This record gives sequence, C-alpha cells and structure tokens, in this order.
Amino acid sequence: MASALLKSRCRRASFLDKVAKAEDLIELFPHNSYIGWSGFTGVGYPKKVPTALADHVERNNLQGKLKFNLFVGASSGAETENRWARLNMIERRAPHQVGKEIAKGINNGNIQFFDKHLSMFPVDLMYGWYTKQKENNRLDVAIVEASAITEDGGIVPGASVGATPEIVQMADKIIIEVNTATPNFEGLHDITMTDLPPRRKPYLIMAPEDRIGTPTVPVDPDRVVAIVESDYPDQTTENAPEDATSVAIANNIIEFLQHEVSRGRLPKNLLPIQSGIGNIANAVVGGLAKGGADFKNLKVWTEVLQDSFLDLFDSGNLDFATATSIRFSPDGFKRFYDGWENYHAKLLLRSQQVSNNPEIIRRLGVIGMNTPVEVDIYAHANSTCVMGSRMLNGLGGSADFLRSSKYSIMHTPSTRPSKSDPTGVSCIVPMCTHVDQTEHDLDVIVTEQGLADVRGLSPRERARVIIEKCAHPEYKPILRDYFEIAERECLKKGWGHEPHLLFNTFDMHRNLVEEGTMKIKEWKY
Amino acid sequence: MASALLKSRCRRASFLDKVAKAEDLIELFPHNSYIGWSGFTGVGYPKKVPTALADHVERNNLQGKLKFNLFVGASSGAETENRWARLNMIERRAPHQVGKEIAKGINNGNIQFFDKHLSMFPVDLMYGWYTKQKENNRLDVAIVEASAITEDGGIVPGASVGATPEIVQMADKIIIEVNTATPNFEGLHDITMTDLPPRRKPYLIMAPEDRIGTPTVPVDPDRVVAIVESDYPDQTTENAPEDATSVAIANNIIEFLQHEVSRGRLPKNLLPIQSGIGNIANAVVGGLAKGGADFKNLKVWTEVLQDSFLDLFDSGNLDFATATSIRFSPDGFKRFYDGWENYHAKLLLRSQQVSNNPEIIRRLGVIGMNTPVEVDIYAHANSTCVMGSRMLNGLGGSADFLRSSKYSIMHTPSTRPSKSDPTGVSCIVPMCTHVDQTEHDLDVIVTEQGLADVRGLSPRERARVIIEKCAHPEYKPILRDYFEIAERECLKKGWGHEPHLLFNTFDMHRNLVEEGTMKIKEWKY
Repeated sequence: MASALLKSRCRRASFLDKVAKAEDLIELFPHNSYIGWSGFTGVGYPKKVPTALADHVERNNLQGKLKFNLFVGASSGAETENRWARLNMIERRAPHQVGKEIAKGINNGNIQFFDKHLSMFPVDLMYGWYTKQKENNRLDVAIVEASAITEDGGIVPGASVGATPEIVQMADKIIIEVNTATPNFEGLHDITMTDLPPRRKPYLIMAPEDRIGTPTVPVDPDRVVAIVESDYPDQTTENAPEDATSVAIANNIIEFLQHEVSRGRLPKNLLPIQSGIGNIANAVVGGLAKGGADFKNLKVWTEVLQDSFLDLFDSGNLDFATATSIRFSPDGFKRFYDGWENYHAKLLLRSQQVSNNPEIIRRLGVIGMNTPVEVDIYAHANSTCVMGSRMLNGLGGSADFLRSSKYSIMHTPSTRPSKSDPTGVSCIVPMCTHVDQTEHDLDVIVTEQGLADVRGLSPRERARVIIEKCAHPEYKPILRDYFEIAERECLKKGWGHEPHLLFNTFDMHRNLVEEGTMKIKEWKY
Repeated sequence: MASALLKSRCRRASFLDKVAKAEDLIELFPHNSYIGWSGFTGVGYPKKVPTALADHVERNNLQGKLKFNLFVGASSGAETENRWARLNMIERRAPHQVGKEIAKGINNGNIQFFDKHLSMFPVDLMYGWYTKQKENNRLDVAIVEASAITEDGGIVPGASVGATPEIVQMADKIIIEVNTATPNFEGLHDITMTDLPPRRKPYLIMAPEDRIGTPTVPVDPDRVVAIVESDYPDQTTENAPEDATSVAIANNIIEFLQHEVSRGRLPKNLLPIQSGIGNIANAVVGGLAKGGADFKNLKVWTEVLQDSFLDLFDSGNLDFATATSIRFSPDGFKRFYDGWENYHAKLLLRSQQVSNNPEIIRRLGVIGMNTPVEVDIYAHANSTCVMGSRMLNGLGGSADFLRSSKYSIMHTPSTRPSKSDPTGVSCIVPMCTHVDQTEHDLDVIVTEQGLADVRGLSPRERARVIIEKCAHPEYKPILRDYFEIAERECLKKGWGHEPHLLFNTFDMHRNLVEEGTMKIKEWKY
C-alpha cells in the first residue's frame, strides 16, 4: 500500500503497517472531538485528513452538525481551516488564525476563539486548560505533518515546529501525514518537549545558534494510529512588498539603531533581531540586507522568517537565524531548496514555546519589532481587535516579544485609508479601543513621520513626543487638542498622571463610524 | 569618629576612614542629580542622608529649587520620599511609590513618574534607559542601606534587596548607611549582579530554596565616598487586617485550589505561591496557615512577605519562602528577630529582577495572586490608574507574576464604597479605564460573590461567567444588559468577537462622577 517514495521517508518499518488513506479515517473524528494539528503561519500543517473531513461534511450535508474543537500552534492553510470555517466545522479555536472565512465565523459568533500568547499556548495545553471539560483532560486526535520519520519513530517536521511537541504529548491518537512532495527537512530542527512544574528545567540557550534538544519529535509508537501520504506542498502566497511608507519606517528604525550603537548601548553587530510578518518587517530586513547601515554579523531570534531573510542571508550580513517557522512564498521555497547547502547550517527551527519564550528573549536582549492596529498617545497598543470588538488574527507572538525584548519597537503607518478618505484612519489615537501591549512594555513608536523614543518618560512626556514625532500632519492638531484639554482638566482635578477625557476618548472612532473619517472638527467634552 | 557598634558592623577597615555625618554630604547632591536608593516596599531604604537633604531644603527654603531624579526598586519610607515630595524635591521617579504626598505630586503634574514592571526596572536602568539624557549614561550617587559590611567591602542588605545590585553597579559615587539599630541580616540574601547581553546567563533556579549568588552585594571600594551610621529601624505600619469580604474571597480561592488538586492539575503540596500586599493576600495566607485545606509542605516564591507568612511558618505548613523583601509590621519584625533561629534557614531574599523574573515564575509554575483597581467582563484588569488617569502606586510586580504564573488569579471585592453609596463602585466593569493586565494573561477572577474560571474561554463565554460569578447582585442586571445589548449589536455588524458599546462603555464611570454611584438606570446607546 505504501509508495516507494513514502517508504524512503518513513524509516520506521512497523509504521508501514499503519499506512491508510485519509478518507478511511473519518470515523476517528466524532462530533465535538478535540483535535490538534501541526502547523504555524500556514506551513507544516496537515493537508489530507482535514481535506477528507471537509469533503465528507460537504458530501453529506453535515455543515454545523460535525464540529470540532481545533488547536493549532498558529495559522494553518486556507484550503484546510478556512474551508472548515466555511463549512461550519469549527466549534472552538485557539490561539491564532488567518483567513477570511475563519475571521467571519469568529466575528459572527459561530466560532469560540481564544487568542493567547503563542509562547504560552503549548504549555497551557499541557496544563489541561483547553481540555478541562473532558474527563481525561486530553486531546482526542493529533494530525501532524512530517517530512520524514526516523527508525525510532521520531517525527521530522517540515517548515514549522510550532506546538507539535505538546500536541503530540497531549493526544490519545496520532495521525502522521508524511509529505513526500517537499524535501526532507532532517537536521533543521531543535526539538524540546514540555515537562510540567515542579520538574521544569532552564532553557540553556545563550545564543541563537545553541542547540539544546533532539532533531526529531519523539512519539509513543502505540499511539500512532495511521500514516497518510501527503502529496502537495504548503499553499503559501506572496509576501507583502515594500512601499514608500514601509521604507520610510525602516529607515527611521535603522537610523535609531545606529544612534544606539554610537551611544554604546548596542554592540556594533546589534543584538538578535525579531521581526514580524508584513511589508514593514520586509522593509526593515531589506534595509539591513542592502547594507546601507553597515551592520555585519547579525543574528536573528524570531518567530517566523519571510523571503526577505533569504536576501539577508545572501548579503553576507546574517550569521545565523532561528525561528519556529519559515513561511516563504512559493518562489522563496524554491530558492531555499535550491540553496539548501548554503542556508541549512545557518538556520534552526524550534518549538514556539522556545522561539517566543520570555526567558530567552530577555537573556539575549532581543530587538523586537511589531505592527499594531493602533497605538495611543501614552504608548499602549491594540494588536487584535478593530473598534475594540472585531478580531483580526489574534495576539500571536507580539506580546511575547514586546514585553521582554531589550528594545520593544512598534512600527505602523501613521494613517490607513477608510472607505471615503485615504487618510481616514489615524493609527495614533487618544486611547486604544483594545489593549494588548501596555505602556509598561513599549520603548519606541515609529511611523513614516518619525520615531518617538519613550524610554523612561512619564505619560505626559510620552504623549507630547508621540504626537509630534509619529502622528500624521492632519491628525497632529486634533491629538494635540485632545491632550491639552485632557491635561488641563485632569490636572485641575488632581488626577493628571495620565490625562484622559474619558467620556470623549473614542470620539475619533465614533466619527469614523458616522462620517467615514477620524478627522473630527472639535472635542465636545 | 566611628562608634564601637559601627566598627563591629563595618568589617572593611579602610571604609572606617570614610565615616561621615549625613549633614556633611549635602554638596554631593547638586540640583538635578540622578540618585538611586536601596529599599523596597518601605524596608531597607536609606534614612540619614535623605533626611539631611530634606532638612537642608526646609532650612534654606529650597523647595522646588533643589530637585532630584530618584530611582528606588519600589517604595521607600514615608519620612524620606514622601517628605521629599512634600518639599517638592522630586523631579522624576520610577518605578513604584507609596505615599499620599508623592501620589499628589504625580497627579498634580509636579513629578514625572514612570511605572515599570519591577523585574525589568533594574535591567532597564543598566541599559541606560533612565539616564540617557546624561553624557555618561550613569547615576550620580547611590545611597544604600546595609546591615553590615564584610571584610572585602561587600554590602549585607537589610530587610530588602530590591534593585540595590544594579543601582550600585550604575552609580559613580556610593554612600553606604550602616544601620546599627536593627540586627545584622548576614546569610539571608542570595545576590546576583546584572550582566548585559550578549553575555547574560540563565538563572539556574529550579526550586525556591536554590542559591545561585553570593551572600553580599560586591562593591568597587574606590566608588564608596562615605559611610554613615544609621540609628533607627524601618518605619513600617500595621498590615491590613482580614475582614468578612477578604475571608470569603480567600475561601473561594482555597476551594478552587482543592478542586485543581482533585483533578490532578496541581500536586498535593500545590506549587510555589505568590501573594501580594493587602488584606485579601493576608486572608489567603491566613487560610493556608489555619490548615483547613490541609495543604502541607508549601513553598512560596513571591515579591514581598507580610506578617501572615510568619503565621504560615509557625503552622508548620510552609517549608520555604523567598522574596525580595520582608515587610513586617513593627510587631512582626520583633517576632521575626525573636524567632530568627527558626525562620532564617527557611528564608532567602533575592534581587527584584530575580524574585519577579518571568523566566523563573514560568519554570516554577507559580500560583500568582493580585488585587486590581477594576476588572472588566472580558478579563482585562486595571492595576494602576483610577478613572484611567489618577495614579495610585504603580504597576509593581503585578504583571510580572500575572503574565507568567501557571495560575493567574485576580482577587477583588465586587464593589467598593463611593462617598454616597456603600456599593457605589463596581469592581467589575464593561471596559477597564486603564489596562495593565490583558485578557491574554488572566485565568481566574474572584470576588466574595464567587470565582470565574475563564481558562480557554472565548470573550463572550468569559463575560457570561464573570458577570454571573463575580459581580455584586446590584450590578449583575446592569452588566448583563450591557453585555446583551453589545452582543446583539456587534454580532449584527459582524464584529462580535468581543462585543462592546464603544461609545457607552464608560457610562458607569460617568454616572459615578455625576451621581456618586455606578448604578445606572439604563444604557442609552
């Protein structure tokens, strides 16, 4: 039953007796099952079994009747979880997602979604927080993609590690999808499993290149119920390209880092860099690759690598990078596989509990960078909920990095377009409508307008510098007015530490809903 | 010049040549100096030099003319920093404070205050974040209290360690106040100094009793400019007593911990406990001391110990406790000194960077407990700013513990009195007016009404359980109305993940300001 290709990848002989077709495994998934998938940022996720289950639901009109509690380290592929959402197959989901249909399900009340720090999700899963409704406090089935299986049954992940170690530890039954359409990633991973307190040990990582684990995810062979051959690669899309705004933001950041080096607060080769997903992140990494700033021997400690890191490797400026996933575009993956010999010795993939762990982020003194929905004048940030209510993708690793980094940097365009006004939404607001990062966590706010260095500043000092350096010129007078009125009124009452007009603080947001722009004429306090 | 008592405590002979009177050191403190003090939660702070400087300002009418940038691990004594605030001697202050006059100065705009995670303040100080305006990026003077000085010049702290290691590392000049009015605390401390990245190492602590440092704070003798004898003890006050509400809250928590043990999610002797300051914390620790729950062999990993921990030691149920300060009442200190032989082998004081470090809190799986200003229906909490603006004491270690603990527990009375209504302020609100702890951080909310276990729940599920379990009966219908209207309106618009009536969300707070109670009649959305 096993193909020659599958036999070459699955070196555990006894597992070949368990080879199955995805469509024959449907009965392992009764309604309301608790399921864990491998995968992170749309790579390394299982493809065959989720697709077979979706086909089954579609064919038998089981929409809303066969629903699952689904746990994945972060986002999966559009053709799997997004399709599941469209077919109303998801009852509950944590801790992060990407996809139009799944966001729709969350915001129309169909899906119970809980976004959690990506470093903490796997250990909370191990604690039993997500399965405490169940008698045995465990997941029913794990579906895990492997790029190979070793003689002792160890799983070699693909382009991500994510929460696979903990999902495998927590599941009663394990299905392994061996992907024979992509290369074997063996040697690229450093795997650590999770012990529970009081038996937990330090992560003895002192530099991004340090290995502390094993090359594969160990598995109890008795719990492996099926091996499925998977025959197509991760369905990734193009990376968001740089534009004038993101390049301007990147230049502001690079200039700041140069300043910090000149003041002796950073070594010449900086400290390990974390960079998020999106075009600003691409522009920052692109700027470092172009070498204008002359930073050499860089290292990267981050959650996910995009295509721009391939440029940074190729520039010769990057000595080592580690993450929990490599989310390249289709062209990027081709480039990566073609250059494997050059890249693989400078790259390591770890579990998300390790890549995002505050223990290591603090120790290494990471330079953390992230993009929010909005930032307020006192340096709180909203990373998740538009208008305080509508979920985008979830918290992700933003707070893991921004709380514990040596430099916690929030970068955003100063405005975004609304339907009727190209600068109708100011990303600098009086008060965030949802707070994911607090004023105690952010060191630097940067837009294409400039950079506000708020380290050690009181809230009133912070407000002045954020408005002057970061706000769009059309919003500066509006925000200045807010702050000055609030300061005057609150100091008068003797509560002026962080001045607010509490009952007007969302007036710009109200104007956006009612008039299509945040440009209010006056503060009617 | 040195008294016999001072000679017996200062065993470094060369330091005896530097003995000085506090009033002769005034010239070391020009206007706008950057000053660090030892001290944490009102113990172990310097007394003589700050008092001499205050006398100098008072005598010479220098109020507002001789001002300082003051950095202390947490709060100091009322007779020092509170008096400095009254005399308008504080230009800038971080990261935490306690005292009527200092809060007044912060809220009337006189003092630039920045509250920061107590675990991060010392390393941010080392990074130069607080002194970046200065050419040499350092503190001018450190004033540090010692209970003894060893032959090699090492400082033996008193009842707190706090940020003393980093303040000593960062200061050009060091003044040591040797307190001869309290016992020598030698042997009670485990001191670690701070290295900067990329040279930082793991904290190899696997249990509360693990020692990884030295018994004293090492000092460069050339930077010690004066030794001052200090002749009176820490001016502490009584601990807040238990009352019916705090006992009811404590009982709810203890019942929850018993439940978790019965489900196998906690060992029988629990995991290390962190407990804050105040009467609820006292009631919880008191409940454990009384032994009703039959928890034995407990351990404590916390920021500060209050008197109730002496009861817990005496009950025989506590095997070991570690903190960065012991803030006993005067009677508590007497009891502690009298029982030194029983207590000292079960107790260790560490720096606040270690006691509050997420690395260790996560590893140990701490049970973290804290009291907020208010909690909202989605499990965000406000720990610092009343009405979003008026600073109380600062963030403290609340977020250090609540983000990284295995169990993150927020305990609060369901209401507080306003001027005109004994239940005029609900501590459960639709949206916090300031967010210090996010929905991604809290596991359990508990009041005297009941306990809401929100682990793994979506926001709409969380709101239902928090309102039903925790809100005061007079506020339940008001909060239910808010949630149900918000849910209906937001789901209708397709942004119902975390439903809010954004432009009415602070109506209860507005009613409090205008009518003296949060009990609104209806939601006029």
